[in-house]
Amino acid sequence: MAAWARAVRGLLLDVSGVLYDSGGDGGVPIAGSVEAGRRIKASGLKLRFCTNETQATREKFVKKLQGMGFDISVAEVTAPAPAACRILKERGLRPHLLVHDDLVPEFAEIDKANPNCVVIGDAAENFTYANLNEAFRVLIGMEKPVLISLGRGRYYKETDGLKLDVGAYMKALEYACDVQAEVVGKPSKAFFESALAEMGVPPQEAIMIGDDIVNDVGGAQRCGMRALQVRTGKYRPCDENHPHVKPDAYVNNLAEAVDILLQQL
Amino acid sequence: MAAWARAVRGLLLDVSGVLYDSGGDGGVPIAGSVEAGRRIKASGLKLRFCTNETQATREKFVKKLQGMGFDISVAEVTAPAPAACRILKERGLRPHLLVHDDLVPEFAEIDKANPNCVVIGDAAENFTYANLNEAFRVLIGMEKPVLISLGRGRYYKETDGLKLDVGAYMKALEYACDVQAEVVGKPSKAFFESALAEMGVPPQEAIMIGDDIVNDVGGAQRCGMRALQVRTGKYRPCDENHPHVKPDAYVNNLAEAVDILLQQL
Repeated sequence: MAAWARAVRGLLLDVSGVLYDSGGDGGVPIAGSVEAGRRIKASGLKLRFCTNETQATREKFVKKLQGMGFDISVAEVTAPAPAACRILKERGLRPHLLVHDDLVPEFAEIDKANPNCVVIGDAAENFTYANLNEAFRVLIGMEKPVLISLGRGRYYKETDGLKLDVGAYMKALEYACDVQAEVVGKPSKAFFESALAEMGVPPQEAIMIGDDIVNDVGGAQRCGMRALQVRTGKYRPCDENHPHVKPDAYVNNLAEAVDILLQQL
Repeated sequence: MAAWARAVRGLLLDVSGVLYDSGGDGGVPIAGSVEAGRRIKASGLKLRFCTNETQATREKFVKKLQGMGFDISVAEVTAPAPAACRILKERGLRPHLLVHDDLVPEFAEIDKANPNCVVIGDAAENFTYANLNEAFRVLIGMEKPVLISLGRGRYYKETDGLKLDVGAYMKALEYACDVQAEVVGKPSKAFFESALAEMGVPPQEAIMIGDDIVNDVGGAQRCGMRALQVRTGKYRPCDENHPHVKPDAYVNNLAEAVDILLQQL
């Protein structure tokens, strides 16, 4: 019996590195993950996809995953951009966006004239020297710079290798402007809590499955959830010696986690 | 009588933001600075140019300044690239370079095959998404990543506006790889000390003049030198409320500093 698998009613699944490996070609499913997703849904466990994906609107992101065979809908996805839009509206903030072109439609209803904050996401090819300088100038020109970052990931794995994630560029702007970014997305507590609320399961009955030791595992555990690290995606063996975070268990991949979970039901 | 100007025998001058404002067009001299440089030389004071410039070889850099009318030679310039080359040779390090194209010749005699460290300078247009990912992959692939940064400046001013400096990109790589860069150049103590040794003046008889409150003023003061901040270049009024660094004096520009210094002789 796996202690970590007892009395679980809901699953939060990270997507990139757990369901699929992303890449310029759209990416490829991780072996066994399409079937594992279907088995979760058939089991009656509650399920929510909890992603820091900011390279596409949720619509486009979900369509890509559906194309790979995953059973997923927009309503099942918790992602940073909609969370950021709520914050912008609440506080009357008008963003200068440094994000991926494909994410821009998520901000369609937000006033962006005469910006009084910068929102940074995983802009990928939009992380040009010119765009970084422009975002920097907007920030340094404010009396009290406001920087909102869609995640704080260090790097992720695409099919052609590791890539710097938004967190690295966030640190560059933080240092240049002597500010601290407000992070929306994992590992923010508010972000996990909204995913739990949307799923309708309390943290002690939920489990997070992810490939990021800090943002998935550490973040979920700080909310009172259990968390597994999969040995897929950006997982590296040295993660198992992380000085601060220890998962409730390691599993080789999502399929193995689901096997064990379903045996407990 | 200005107390800060007493018993000065040698001057270290920052270049960009003190002598001239750099820019895509080569830059323009700051009013009065060409004449001020000539007056220092005529006075018999020792003089050395102490720069974190890494967008060009010293030869090219000096030629540009001579073209603006400055009396300056390569032998009078202390710059990070030659200091980094000494370190690379001493420690048998083979760098992957993320630097400006025009700086590459400074590393001509350094073995760069099969790199075991990354050297980052102010790469400007070479700070592309692809180049940053490449430097990151070299670092993260090492058992113990070694990152050498030619300066840690946050930003600087060019004729067309403020630009992110090498320190911002250094922070991005530090965060992504969980390493601390070794900084060559200002504000490193070893760097100021080598400039003083080359000038042949002890720190208590030398004064640094710069536009960067942290890297020029703070760095020089930590070596036992006096330091002035000029109100040119990247200077911003809020620098005068810096929480940790207080210059021995502010001057409006280099010409004003030289006026006061020469009155004491």
